[in-house]
Amino acid sequence: MYVHDTIAAISTPIGEAGLGIIRVSGDQAVDIVDRIFRGKKRLKDTDTYQARYGYIIDFKSGKKIDEVICLLMRSPHSFTTEDVVEVGCHGGIVPLRRILNSILDAGARLAEPGEFTKRAFLNGRIDLAQAEAIIQIITSRTEKGMEIAVQQLEGGLSRKISNLRQKLIRVLAHLEAALDFPEDEIEGFSEGEIGKIISEVISEVEKLLKTSQTGKIYREGVRTIIVGRPNVGKSSLLNALLREQRAIVTDIPGTTRDVIEEMINLQGVPLKLIDTAGIRDTEDLVERLGVERSKELLNKADLVLLVLDVSQELTDEDFKIIEMIRNKKTIVVVNKTDLDAKIDQFQLQKIFPDQKIVRTSMVEEEGLDELRDAILELVFQGEVVSTDETIVTNLRHQRALEDALQSLNKAKESFKANMPHDFVTIDLKAGVEHLGKITGETLTEDIIDQIFAEFCLGK
Amino acid sequence: MYVHDTIAAISTPIGEAGLGIIRVSGDQAVDIVDRIFRGKKRLKDTDTYQARYGYIIDFKSGKKIDEVICLLMRSPHSFTTEDVVEVGCHGGIVPLRRILNSILDAGARLAEPGEFTKRAFLNGRIDLAQAEAIIQIITSRTEKGMEIAVQQLEGGLSRKISNLRQKLIRVLAHLEAALDFPEDEIEGFSEGEIGKIISEVISEVEKLLKTSQTGKIYREGVRTIIVGRPNVGKSSLLNALLREQRAIVTDIPGTTRDVIEEMINLQGVPLKLIDTAGIRDTEDLVERLGVERSKELLNKADLVLLVLDVSQELTDEDFKIIEMIRNKKTIVVVNKTDLDAKIDQFQLQKIFPDQKIVRTSMVEEEGLDELRDAILELVFQGEVVSTDETIVTNLRHQRALEDALQSLNKAKESFKANMPHDFVTIDLKAGVEHLGKITGETLTEDIIDQIFAEFCLGK
Repeated sequence: MYVHDTIAAISTPIGEAGLGIIRVSGDQAVDIVDRIFRGKKRLKDTDTYQARYGYIIDFKSGKKIDEVICLLMRSPHSFTTEDVVEVGCHGGIVPLRRILNSILDAGARLAEPGEFTKRAFLNGRIDLAQAEAIIQIITSRTEKGMEIAVQQLEGGLSRKISNLRQKLIRVLAHLEAALDFPEDEIEGFSEGEIGKIISEVISEVEKLLKTSQTGKIYREGVRTIIVGRPNVGKSSLLNALLREQRAIVTDIPGTTRDVIEEMINLQGVPLKLIDTAGIRDTEDLVERLGVERSKELLNKADLVLLVLDVSQELTDEDFKIIEMIRNKKTIVVVNKTDLDAKIDQFQLQKIFPDQKIVRTSMVEEEGLDELRDAILELVFQGEVVSTDETIVTNLRHQRALEDALQSLNKAKESFKANMPHDFVTIDLKAGVEHLGKITGETLTEDIIDQIFAEFCLGK
Repeated sequence: MYVHDTIAAISTPIGEAGLGIIRVSGDQAVDIVDRIFRGKKRLKDTDTYQARYGYIIDFKSGKKIDEVICLLMRSPHSFTTEDVVEVGCHGGIVPLRRILNSILDAGARLAEPGEFTKRAFLNGRIDLAQAEAIIQIITSRTEKGMEIAVQQLEGGLSRKISNLRQKLIRVLAHLEAALDFPEDEIEGFSEGEIGKIISEVISEVEKLLKTSQTGKIYREGVRTIIVGRPNVGKSSLLNALLREQRAIVTDIPGTTRDVIEEMINLQGVPLKLIDTAGIRDTEDLVERLGVERSKELLNKADLVLLVLDVSQELTDEDFKIIEMIRNKKTIVVVNKTDLDAKIDQFQLQKIFPDQKIVRTSMVEEEGLDELRDAILELVFQGEVVSTDETIVTNLRHQRALEDALQSLNKAKESFKANMPHDFVTIDLKAGVEHLGKITGETLTEDIIDQIFAEFCLGK
C-alpha cells in the first residue's frame, strides 16, 4: 500500500448543468473537506457510503460558496481505495472552481490527469488494463465499444493474460529447476507437455491479436469518404445515412465541429463520414479542395464510397476519380436506379472486378440496407468477432501481444531444435514480461506515469 | 402537494470526464431504479442519504451497462422533495445515455428542461425567485455574480419581497374592512400610518430597482469593443487585458468560439471583449467589417475603448472613428506614451470634454490599472452597490418591481388626494400582485411553465 497526499479535482465535465462533482481522495480527504463543510454533522462523524447535506465555505474568507451534498466513501471501499469525499454542487464552472479552490486552500493538492485511476492501480484495486478500460468507457462512441471496455474493466482481458502468464511461468520454473539441478530428475512436465503448452499459449496470443483488428474498428471507427462527380447524389446519400443512424456522439458539443466529421453508428461500429462542406455540396471534391488535399483525405480514409449516377454514361471525371481511389477499399454505389440506366452492368463489373457494387435510389429509398451490409462486410473482412469474447482494443496491448508472440515463437523454435534450455528460457521470460505489460505488472514507473498522464483531469 | 410521475435526466454536463450523474425523481424513483440496479442490497432497503455500489443493467436485454454508485434521498429531504435517486456512473456520453435509456425503459419519463427545479417549486420547497437563482448560480461568470445568486437562493430577495407584500396586505385589510363596515370604527392604522407605510414600501421598491443596474452588469457583463485605426495598439491592449484577467469562463468549450468574445473578470464584473479577427489584427474595424456591420457591433456594445496613438498626430481616420462613437460610453486610451507625444493634451480635452482619458504604454506596461478603474467607474456610474445587499439581477424581477412601483405610486397619489378608498385599494392590490410575481405566488401556470422551460435539461 502506497502512502499518498490528498488530491482533489473536478470530476464531471466542464459545462452548465444541474450537478457537478469535485472528488477528493487521500488520508486527509475527510479532514480537509470538514474544514470547509458546514452541515448538521461533520464528515468525520459520518458513516461510509453516507451523504450529508450542507454548504461549502471559502476557506480563506469564510463566505458561503454553495449548497452541496457530500458523499463519503471510506478506505478501502472507494474508487482509489483511499478515503474519498465527493462534493456535489450546482453544475456551473464558477461554483465548481470556487469549491475546488477552497478545498485546495484547505490542504488538498490538485490531482494530475488520471491520478485517481492511477491510485486505484497503485493501490492494487485494478490492474493497468482495467484502468485503461475506464478511459475507453468514458470515450466510447457506441454501445458495443462500451461493452468491450466494460468487459475489460471487469477483468476479462486481465484474467486471460494472467492465465497465459501463469502457464508460461510454470514451464519456466520447471526448465530453470532443470538448469539449476542438472543432475536431478525434475518432476513436472515432460518435454512433450512443454512444447504443447508453449504452442497453446502462442495460439491464444494469436487469437487475441486477431481480435485487435475488430478492436481498432470499435475503438477508432471507420473513416469513410464519399466521392463522386457533382450531382450524382453524394449529399443525398450522406443525409440518408445520417438520418437513419446518426450516432449519439454527435451530441457532444464540438465533436463534429472541429474534425469536420459526421458520426454514424453502424451496428455498433462508429462510421466517421468525412464531411467537408465541399463534399456535402454538389461540388466536386477535387475541384473544391485541390488534388493535394483530396489525396490527403483519401489517404486517411479507411473506406471509400464511390457514387456513380446510373442514369448518365460514365464521364472522364468519373474515370479520373476511379483512378484516384484505385488502391483504396471501395464500395461502388450505383445511384439513381429509379431512372433509366445508361451504365452497362457488364462494363461496371469489368471496371470493378473485385469491388462490391451496390445499387441505390435515394428517391425510392432503396439499397441502403444492402449498402450498410456491404460496409460492415468490408470493414470486418468477413471476420466479425462476437463482442462477448475478449477483444483487444488498445494499441499498447496489441504491441505487447505482438512482442510476446515474437518471443514465444523464438522459444518454440529453440525448444523444437533441442537447443540448450537457457536459449528457451530467455525467450520465454521475455514473453512473460511482454504479456505482463498489458496488466502493468512488468512496466517501469516512467511508462506507467506516461500512460496515466494521457487520462483526463478528474479521473 | 402535487402528484407527479417519475422523471429522469442526465444532470451533469455532456462531455468526457470521470463521473456523470443521472437524476431520477418521483414516487416510483426507487422502484424503477431497483428494476435495473444490481448491488448487495436493493435501494428500497436502503436508508435515505445512503449510497450503494453496484451496476446497472439494460432493462430490455439484461446486459450489464456500467458500474454505478446510487445515492438515495427520500421524500421530503431531496432537491424536489420527492424520492430522488442519483445514479453516478462513468462520465461519458455513451454510459450516461445507456443508463438513462434503461431507466426510461424501466418506467421513468424523460424530464423536461427545468422540471426538477419546477417540482421543487411546485412542491413548495423553494419559491420562483429561488428557482431562478439556481440557474444564475450555474451560469454565473464570476464569483460576485455567483454570490448574488446564492444570496437569492437563500431567500434574501424573497424575504424582502414577502416583507413588503405583508406590509401592503395589512394596509389593504384595514382599508377593505373600512370599506365593508363604513359605520364601524376600524381599529388598526391611522391615516397617517397608512400613508407612511405606502411611502416606505415605495422607497424600498425604488432601492431594489436601483440595484438592478448593478445586477444586470454582474449577470450579463459589459460588452466592450476596442476601436481605433490600424497600428495604434488595439491588439496589444486586448492581449494585455486578457493576460492579466482572463476569466475562468473561457474554459467552457465553445463559449468564445461561437460568440467571438473574450471574457475578462474585472473585479467580479464580466467584461466581454468583442474579439473578431479583424479587431484583433491591425486592420481597421470599419475597413474589415464594412460600415454596417461595424455600426451594428458598436450599437450592441455597452462600452467603447477608443485607442489613439499619442506619437502621431490625429488623422482623418481617427476623426471618422470618433464621429462613429459619438453617442457611446467611451474611454479614450491614449497609447504609446513611451514615445514622443504629437497629440496635444489640450486638443484632446477639447474633443473629449466629458470622456475619461487614460494614458497607457503597452511597452512600459503602464496605465492598465488606471484603465481598469476607469472602466469600473464608468460601468457603475459611481453607484457601486455592495454585493452583500440584496441585488436584483433578473430582468423579470426588474419588470415586476417597475410595475409594482407604478401601481404603488398611483395608490399613494389617490390616498394623498383623499380619493375614495377603493381607488387606493385597487392600486395597492395591483402592487401586491406585481410583487408576488417575483416569488411566483401570483403567476399563472402558463407563465411558470414558460419560465422553467428556459432552464437546461437535467436541472
